[in-house]
Amino acid sequence: MSDQPSELDRPQVDTLDGLLGKPLRVLDDGFVRVVDYMGSDAAVVQAARVSYGTGTKRVHEDRGLIRYLMRHRHTTPFEMCEIKLHLRLPMDCWRQWIRHRTANVNEYSTRYSLAIDAAQQTDRGEWRLQAEGNRQGSAGKLGAEQGQQLSQRERELQARAQQVYRERIGLGVAREQARKDLPLSTYTEAYWKIDLHNLLHFLALRMDSHAQQKIREYATLIGQQIVAKWCPLTWEAFVDYRVNGTSLTRLDVEVIRALNQGGSERAVVIAQELGLLQTGKRGWKRNRERAELEAKLNQLALAIPWGEPPGD
Amino acid sequence: MSDQPSELDRPQVDTLDGLLGKPLRVLDDGFVRVVDYMGSDAAVVQAARVSYGTGTKRVHEDRGLIRYLMRHRHTTPFEMCEIKLHLRLPMDCWRQWIRHRTANVNEYSTRYSLAIDAAQQTDRGEWRLQAEGNRQGSAGKLGAEQGQQLSQRERELQARAQQVYRERIGLGVAREQARKDLPLSTYTEAYWKIDLHNLLHFLALRMDSHAQQKIREYATLIGQQIVAKWCPLTWEAFVDYRVNGTSLTRLDVEVIRALNQGGSERAVVIAQELGLLQTGKRGWKRNRERAELEAKLNQLALAIPWGEPPGD
Amino acid sequence: MSDQPSELDRPQVDTLDGLLGKPLRVLDDGFVRVVDYMGSDAAVVQAARVSYGTGTKRVHEDRGLIRYLMRHRHTTPFEMCEIKLHLRLPMDCWRQWIRHRTANVNEYSTRYSLAIDAAQQTDRGEWRLQAEGNRQGSAGKLGAEQGQQLSQRERELQARAQQVYRERIGLGVAREQARKDLPLSTYTEAYWKIDLHNLLHFLALRMDSHAQQKIREYATLIGQQIVAKWCPLTWEAFVDYRVNGTSLTRLDVEVIRALNQGGSERAVVIAQELGLLQTGKRGWKRNRERAELEAKLNQLALAIPWGEPPGD
Amino acid sequence: MSDQPSELDRPQVDTLDGLLGKPLRVLDDGFVRVVDYMGSDAAVVQAARVSYGTGTKRVHEDRGLIRYLMRHRHTTPFEMCEIKLHLRLPMDCWRQWIRHRTANVNEYSTRYSLAIDAAQQTDRGEWRLQAEGNRQGSAGKLGAEQGQQLSQRERELQARAQQVYRERIGLGVAREQARKDLPLSTYTEAYWKIDLHNLLHFLALRMDSHAQQKIREYATLIGQQIVAKWCPLTWEAFVDYRVNGTSLTRLDVEVIRALNQGGSERAVVIAQELGLLQTGKRGWKRNRERAELEAKLNQLALAIPWGEPPGD
Repeated sequence: MSDQPSELDRPQVDTLDGLLGKPLRVLDDGFVRVVDYMGSDAAVVQAARVSYGTGTKRVHEDRGLIRYLMRHRHTTPFEMCEIKLHLRLPMDCWRQWIRHRTANVNEYSTRYSLAIDAAQQTDRGEWRLQAEGNRQGSAGKLGAEQGQQLSQRERELQARAQQVYRERIGLGVAREQARKDLPLSTYTEAYWKIDLHNLLHFLALRMDSHAQQKIREYATLIGQQIVAKWCPLTWEAFVDYRVNGTSLTRLDVEVIRALNQGGSERAVVIAQELGLLQTGKRGWKRNRERAELEAKLNQLALAIPWGEPPGD
Repeated sequence: MSDQPSELDRPQVDTLDGLLGKPLRVLDDGFVRVVDYMGSDAAVVQAARVSYGTGTKRVHEDRGLIRYLMRHRHTTPFEMCEIKLHLRLPMDCWRQWIRHRTANVNEYSTRYSLAIDAAQQTDRGEWRLQAEGNRQGSAGKLGAEQGQQLSQRERELQARAQQVYRERIGLGVAREQARKDLPLSTYTEAYWKIDLHNLLHFLALRMDSHAQQKIREYATLIGQQIVAKWCPLTWEAFVDYRVNGTSLTRLDVEVIRALNQGGSERAVVIAQELGLLQTGKRGWKRNRERAELEAKLNQLALAIPWGEPPGD
Repeated sequence: MSDQPSELDRPQVDTLDGLLGKPLRVLDDGFVRVVDYMGSDAAVVQAARVSYGTGTKRVHEDRGLIRYLMRHRHTTPFEMCEIKLHLRLPMDCWRQWIRHRTANVNEYSTRYSLAIDAAQQTDRGEWRLQAEGNRQGSAGKLGAEQGQQLSQRERELQARAQQVYRERIGLGVAREQARKDLPLSTYTEAYWKIDLHNLLHFLALRMDSHAQQKIREYATLIGQQIVAKWCPLTWEAFVDYRVNGTSLTRLDVEVIRALNQGGSERAVVIAQELGLLQTGKRGWKRNRERAELEAKLNQLALAIPWGEPPGD
Repeated sequence: MSDQPSELDRPQVDTLDGLLGKPLRVLDDGFVRVVDYMGSDAAVVQAARVSYGTGTKRVHEDRGLIRYLMRHRHTTPFEMCEIKLHLRLPMDCWRQWIRHRTANVNEYSTRYSLAIDAAQQTDRGEWRLQAEGNRQGSAGKLGAEQGQQLSQRERELQARAQQVYRERIGLGVAREQARKDLPLSTYTEAYWKIDLHNLLHFLALRMDSHAQQKIREYATLIGQQIVAKWCPLTWEAFVDYRVNGTSLTRLDVEVIRALNQGGSERAVVIAQELGLLQTGKRGWKRNRERAELEAKLNQLALAIPWGEPPGD
C-alpha cells in the first residue's frame, strides 16, 4: 500500500449534497432529512482494495467489484460508509425501528421537553383489513363509511389524550409521568446514524412486503431517494441480489433438479421423500415449505409437478 | 492451562434456582421473571484466570480478584455470565429499556396477537411534580384532590383507548394498524437476555436517581433481588465502586489538593484560575461544574472554601 | 402470557452435558471444549412464541416453527441460546476468528504469562498449493520431498523463535516485548462465548469452502460435533437452508425463467440484455456473474443455454 | 424541532482537513492516516440538543454542554461523530487493537496478497525490563551490550522468517499457509472506522500507563494529534475528566470523610472496619485496595493516616 496518496480530499457526492437538510415527507407529518454522510461507492472500493495490496492488478472495474462483494456477502467494505439522518415518525413506527441495534441514536426527549403536539392520523380511505392467512399482514381496505367513522373516533381519542396531557402539565406533573398515556401515534424525532451495510440490512427487512406498512414507507423512501443517490452502484447490486433475488433451500434444489432430470414423476417422488407431500384428509396436507417452493417454481416458470394440491 | 479439568458440571446457583420462573412484581401489573442464567461469580474468576496461565500462583482470593477487576474496569470476565429475564412492563418504560443495544430481545408482538389488555395506572397519591432546577426529574407529589382527579381522567382515557382499539379489531382492521393509538402506558412483555457486564452498566444508569421513576423500580429489583443472589461478590463490588463511588475531575483534584496544601485561600485562587469562580451580578455566577464539586466536598466532609456562594 | 409457568427448571441437553469439559481435538495440538451453555431448541421455540401470546393456537410443531424461523431469517429467537467454549488454536487462526465482533472473549495473555510453548506444525504431506483462479484458496498438495524440506525448515524456525523468546525472558525483558517475534503459528487459548444466531453466522462463513483451511476444521467440528448435539432441530434447518441452500439473483431468475418459457434461444437473448454475454477476443468475455450462474444451472440440472463458453 | 434549517452544509474541520491522507509516523515503520471523518464538536452539540426541542432556551454554551455530557457520561451525542483511519502497525499490536469490537475494519489480507515485507525492529536501547510488582508492565531498560545482542538476534530471526516465507511462496505454497510462521512483529495495515465515543473509550484504555507500550504510542498520537484537532472541546473535557480525573470508591470516601471529620485516629478505625488494615506478620498485610487509596490520598495532598505501613 506504499502507493497510497499522501493527500486526500473528503469524498463528496453532489447529488446527495443537494439533499442535505431538506425534509423528505413521509405519512401526514413525518420526514427524513439527510444530515451528513461519510464515503460513497468509491469508499467501498477503496476499503475492499486494502485486501489486495500494491501488487494486485486492478482487474475489476468498480461496479464489478461492488457487485462481487454484495453477491458474496463480503460486508465489511460497506461498513466504511456512514449516513446520519434526522427522522420524524410516529412512536409505534419508532418502536420497530429502534430494534435495529447497530445504529447510533439521539431521540427527542419527552422528559426534558414537552411531547411533540402531533399524532399520525389515518384517512378514512386508509384503514386496512387484517390478512387472513398471514397473521402479521394486512389486505384490502375498509369501506368508506366505516373508515369515516374510525377516522372520526381516532381524532377524538387523540384530542382527548392531548387534553389529558396538557392538563397534567398545567398542574405541574413531571413531564416523564405526564406523557405516560400519549398514544403510540404521537410523533417523535431522532438523529439516526448507521453504516451502509447495516442500513441495507435494515432496508432489506423493512422494505419487505411483510414489514409494517408505515415503516415500509420510510424504508422505501430512504432506499429509493437517498441510498440510490448516495451509492448508486451499491444500490443497484442490492436491488439485484437482495430485493429481487430469491433463495433455494436444499429441498428446493433437489426437487427442481429431479424435475429437470426425471420429469414430474421423479420430482414427486423426491418431494415425498423430503416430507413435502403428505396426504391429508382432503388432498395434500398443508405444508408451508412446499407452498414456498411452489411460489419459487412459479417465479422460475416451472410447472408444479404435483399439480395444484387437491382440495387445499 | 494444561491443568484444566476434562469434565465439568454446569455452574449452578442454588439461591437463584429457587427464583426461576417466579414473577417478582413491579408497578401495578408488571413483573420480572428469571428464565435462565449462565455462570456465576466463579465463572468470572475462571475467565479472568485464563489470562494468568498455569504458571501463576493463585494469590488472589476470588473476592479480591473480582473486586480488582471491577475497580479497574477489566470488564470482559463479567461478560462470561449471562441471564435471561421475562419482563412485563409499560411501553413507555420499554422505550427507554430498549435503548440498551447489547441485549438479545424477543418482544410480544401486537402485529401477531391482540395487545395486552392492561395499562399501567397511577394511584391518586402517586402523581409527581416536575423538579425545578432539574428538567429531567420530579420532586414531591401533587395534592390528594388533584391526584384523585388525574387518576380518574387517566382511567377514562385508558378505557376510551381500549374501546377504540376493540372497535377497530371488531371491524376487521389489521392489528398492526389498530394498535396505533394505544397509550404508552399499555403493558408489553419481552424476553431479555444480557451478559453481566452489560447488565451492570444498565443498572448503573437505570438505578440512578436521575433515571425515570418506573424504570428505576425495575432496575432496583433486578439488582437487589436477582443479581445480588446470582453473583453476590460481583454485586458487592459493583455497589462499592459504581453505585456508591464517586469520581473527581482534574479540576476537583486540583482544588482539593490546594485546599489540603494551602487552605481555603489557596483553593479559591486555584478555583478562580480554573474558571470555576466568576463574579456575576449577585455573588458567584452559576456554574454547574462548581456546584458538583461543592457536593463532592460535602460528601468528603470538606468545607467549601469559597463559603456558600453569595446570592446563589 | 398469563399462562406462563411460575416455576421453571433450567433447560438441559443431556447429549451436550456429556461433552462438558472434554477437549475435542483439532490440528496437532488444538482443541475445543464446551464450558457451559444456555438454552436449547426448546428455548428458541419459547422465545418465538412470546410473539404469539396466549390466544394463539400452537399449530406449528417445534420443528416446523424452527424451520420457519430459519428460512425467513427471524433471527432473534436463536439469540436466546448461548454457548461458552474454551479454545486452543494457532494465533493466525485466531486472527480471523476474532474478527467476529459479536462474541465475548477472554484470551490467554502473554503479557501476564509466558507464551504457550507450542506452535502448530505442518506435516510433510500437508503443504497445499496456491489455487490458480482463486487468489484466496489452495488446491492440491506439494510433493513429498519438498514437503519434507518445508516441514524441516518450519521446525527449525519455530525452535529458533522459541530460543530467542526464552533468551529474552532469561535476560529479564518485559513479557509484552519478548513475545514480539513469536511465529503466528504459536498456540493461544481463549474463552469464547456467543449466542446461537451469531454462532451460526460464524459457521456459515467459516465452514465454507472459501474459508481458511485451519479455521474450517474448527468450525466444522463445532458445527457437527457440538451444535448438532446441542440444538439438533436448529442444526438440521441450518444445514438445509444455509449450508446446502443456494441463492438466485434477479439476473439468475430472469435467465432461468426465459429458459423455461422460451428455451435456449430466449435465455441467450435475455442473458445478453443483462450484460452477461459479451463477445471477447476468444469466445465470451470472462464474466464472474455468468460463471456463477452456470454453476447454479448445473446444480439445478439445467443445460447452459449458451453452450460451453467458446474458448474460455 | 420545527426550526431546523432546511439546507445544510457538511460540517468541516479545517485543521483536520489539512491532515487528510498524511501519514503520521509511529514506531520504525508504522503510521496513522486520517482518511475521512463525519461531524465535529458542533455535531455533538446538535445531537444533544435534539433532546431539548424547540421550546428550550439555549442557556448552555457549546463548551459547557460538551463538558456536561462528558462528565455525566451522556455518551450518545459523541457517537454522532465518526472517523476513518488508515493504520500500519505490527501484528502483535493489532492483536490488542482488534479486541475493541465497536469499530468497522478492513485489514490487509495475507491470503490474497503477499505479506508486507517489513517487521518492527527494536533498537538496542529499547529493550525494556519486566516490572516487578506489576506483571503486565515493564520498567527500565536493558544495558546497551545486552540490548545490542538482542537486536542482533532479532534481525537474524526476522530475516530467517522472511526467507522461509519466500521459500514457501517460491515453491507455490498457498499464501494462507505460507504465512503461518511469520513473526508477530510483521507489519499489517487496516482501515479502521469508529465513532467518537468508542474512540475515546479506546484511547482511555490504550493511552493508559498500564497499556502495552506500542499501542500506547499509537493511541497517544491519535488523541493528541488527531482528536485534539478534530473535536478540541470534546478532547479538553476528555482530558479533564477521564485522563486526569480519578475515582473514589465507597471505601475511599468513607476513609477520607472520617479523616476530615475525626482526624487520623477516626480514619484508622474506619479503615479497619472496612477490612483495609489487617495486621500481618510484618506490619500491615498487603492490600491492593488500600495501596490504591494511599495513592489517591497522596494525589489529594492528604496524609496517610496509618503512616507508612510498617514493614511493607
